[in-house]
Amino acid sequence: MPLKTNDPSKKTWISVSEDSDFPIQNIPFGVFLTRDDVITIGTRIGDHAIDLGALHQLGYFNEIPLTDDIFLQDTLNDFISDGKKTWRLVRNRISEIFDETNPILRDNIEHRKVVLFTMDEIEMQLPVQIGDYTDFYSSKEHATNVGSMFRDPNNALLPNWLHIPVGYHGRSSSIVTSGTPIRRPMGQTMPNGATAPVFGPSKLVDFELEMGFITTDANVLGEPIPVEEAEDYIFGMVLFNDWSARDIQKWEYVPLGPFLAKNFASSMSPWIVTMDALQPFKVESPKQSPTPLPYLQHQGKKTYDIHLEVDIIPEDSVATTVTKSNFKYMYWTMSQQLAHHTINGCNVNSGDLMGSGTISGPTPDSYGSMLELSWGGKNPVQLNDGTTRTFIEDNDTVVMRGFCNKNGIRIGFGEVSTKLLPVFQPKAKK
Amino acid sequence: MPLKTNDPSKKTWISVSEDSDFPIQNIPFGVFLTRDDVITIGTRIGDHAIDLGALHQLGYFNEIPLTDDIFLQDTLNDFISDGKKTWRLVRNRISEIFDETNPILRDNIEHRKVVLFTMDEIEMQLPVQIGDYTDFYSSKEHATNVGSMFRDPNNALLPNWLHIPVGYHGRSSSIVTSGTPIRRPMGQTMPNGATAPVFGPSKLVDFELEMGFITTDANVLGEPIPVEEAEDYIFGMVLFNDWSARDIQKWEYVPLGPFLAKNFASSMSPWIVTMDALQPFKVESPKQSPTPLPYLQHQGKKTYDIHLEVDIIPEDSVATTVTKSNFKYMYWTMSQQLAHHTINGCNVNSGDLMGSGTISGPTPDSYGSMLELSWGGKNPVQLNDGTTRTFIEDNDTVVMRGFCNKNGIRIGFGEVSTKLLPVFQPKAKK
Repeated sequence: MPLKTNDPSKKTWISVSEDSDFPIQNIPFGVFLTRDDVITIGTRIGDHAIDLGALHQLGYFNEIPLTDDIFLQDTLNDFISDGKKTWRLVRNRISEIFDETNPILRDNIEHRKVVLFTMDEIEMQLPVQIGDYTDFYSSKEHATNVGSMFRDPNNALLPNWLHIPVGYHGRSSSIVTSGTPIRRPMGQTMPNGATAPVFGPSKLVDFELEMGFITTDANVLGEPIPVEEAEDYIFGMVLFNDWSARDIQKWEYVPLGPFLAKNFASSMSPWIVTMDALQPFKVESPKQSPTPLPYLQHQGKKTYDIHLEVDIIPEDSVATTVTKSNFKYMYWTMSQQLAHHTINGCNVNSGDLMGSGTISGPTPDSYGSMLELSWGGKNPVQLNDGTTRTFIEDNDTVVMRGFCNKNGIRIGFGEVSTKLLPVFQPKAKK
Repeated sequence: MPLKTNDPSKKTWISVSEDSDFPIQNIPFGVFLTRDDVITIGTRIGDHAIDLGALHQLGYFNEIPLTDDIFLQDTLNDFISDGKKTWRLVRNRISEIFDETNPILRDNIEHRKVVLFTMDEIEMQLPVQIGDYTDFYSSKEHATNVGSMFRDPNNALLPNWLHIPVGYHGRSSSIVTSGTPIRRPMGQTMPNGATAPVFGPSKLVDFELEMGFITTDANVLGEPIPVEEAEDYIFGMVLFNDWSARDIQKWEYVPLGPFLAKNFASSMSPWIVTMDALQPFKVESPKQSPTPLPYLQHQGKKTYDIHLEVDIIPEDSVATTVTKSNFKYMYWTMSQQLAHHTINGCNVNSGDLMGSGTISGPTPDSYGSMLELSWGGKNPVQLNDGTTRTFIEDNDTVVMRGFCNKNGIRIGFGEVSTKLLPVFQPKAKK
């Protein structure tokens, strides 16, 4: 049965432009700083942010069992812990409150004053405290491209790739939200032909077009999550830019995997779009051959048709869309990733983030990183301002966007926008 | 100048046996549940735990700038955030309060009743909320042993090993403290000679003898920590058992590193021994050749002489000490690990844990894992009860201990003890 919050005919009394990512069918969750310097949990409709803490204090959620301060927090973790049933009750209620026919808040000027903000009045925050961040490597096209460049085009995938949703642990502390600039990392690299490593700024800073999903408390240590139940433990999804320094990675990553090449920063979009909002956009995932082991087998539509694109904006210049991809290309589904992650008993908590890995499509204009788009730097990418890029240059801004579109309803993620600043210069000692 | 808390002649009015890990010169920090079911921060002298929350409420720390609830917390993170100067003031004051000549608490029966607990009255907790956990791979002997077994004895170290304190990100959620049993993990493996992976219990569960250090907030994103300053940001050290499933690891780890082979559990000792307490045991670290890059160069004694040992105790049987090693064998120091970790601007927070990697010594009786002790299973290890082990069996308990000893003063870490339970059996559906 379709969820009533997804009804395409539903309209709201807040003005929403036709190309908005945030119609009343979306109702994402985020955390923001208000004009009064208060941190609150909120949602967004059109270009208005809605203070759920204020709404709750005014009694609008009285019929839902919620603690008094559930929205007066600086992260969504406790709300996410409340579980799927509560998320759905709250979204249903928000959908009712903002329905164009419902006068309860619409006609209450005093309440509207404390509940509604325009987007330029607020400052979005990282929406969750990320306990653990895992990154997968689940795009067959991406793994094939990387394998072709660095190993053997005729044998690009490693032997385990078709059997395992390969993943590894990343760094939580350096995950920032959209708008936070990051710095080009310094590090060790081994130049081609050199006999000893050198130290300096990374010369090959790259974006990775990914999406991430946020989990709730899913299991206790020692007990796996069955693949067919996995989606019940996913709160929602975000856009994710897994910044990478390719030259540092190449020298450091054997045998324990990427480390400093990745942990200088990752950027995520601030609004978490719920799995309920994404239901209408479910599609079949790619056929898997060989058939995976039973603990990874599931039935039905388990992935989502989400259009993705990346812009590069050089300083004081115009944007160029350098790639268009889609989440549906992923070979391994989120359910398979979560089932695999926990098959050994690893426990997953509220606010954990799981990245998809770079999402590359089948054609060269759908690759999810500059490494692939420039094919290791061999084919510079032409930008609209006449310059070219093989990797990301200082003061470039990288913007990722994502949205679903079906039956006239667009559900989007907004964007994750990050400027790459030059390397850190220590202050001279006095 | 030696710290006065380290004065070997200092005695306390609490009875401390000669072989105790916790004389008044130690003063470690931990978190425990009291007989009244209250969580508090505490320290330990001999076989008594001391409730620092109660001491603070009674006014014993009035001359130190501390927030009222700094010890009434379920983790040490906020106290660790207060920084090195505060840690030292608090330890100095504890050292004064429990000095045998100081009557202030000694002769106050009422206060002693609420402050002092015997160890069997309390339950130790995980002492920190670990935001991020990083594991290094810094024992040359261990890396050489592993490289010899799996690659080439004549070329055992990978090219980057002597230039980089190689490390990778681990899983925080599954870190447990001493006494918490863990389960044998299920997982995918590729048996020798097989053409497709199989699913089942790991057959090669192993311990890794490690130590870990806990950091304070060290830097902001984008700014490295200089190697000579790194120790100022280390709060203290613990024993650490980085459980590993060797068969799962072998199949999954290419190209992104170990994942499910490690994240089913890691175990840490509950008392964090401060760097101040360890000062008398500083020793030179191994000579490094080639000389590392300048950002990894430091002067003076940067490592510690800490004796380590591991027992295996089969169910209802006697203990066998299967290895004796020492922290001082580590090729890369904690200062180098922390400087390397942040050279790209990665930010480190209060409560982060950094593992040393398996600590193997130069002789076969000092290797830090069953993989090395049994040389990949070829040489079973004889136990005192007449049985043998190549890896860890169901219901075995693994106990790690560590202590320093010099000039009649023993500073120890207690132990980290973990029982390996059989694989999880899902309940039959009704």
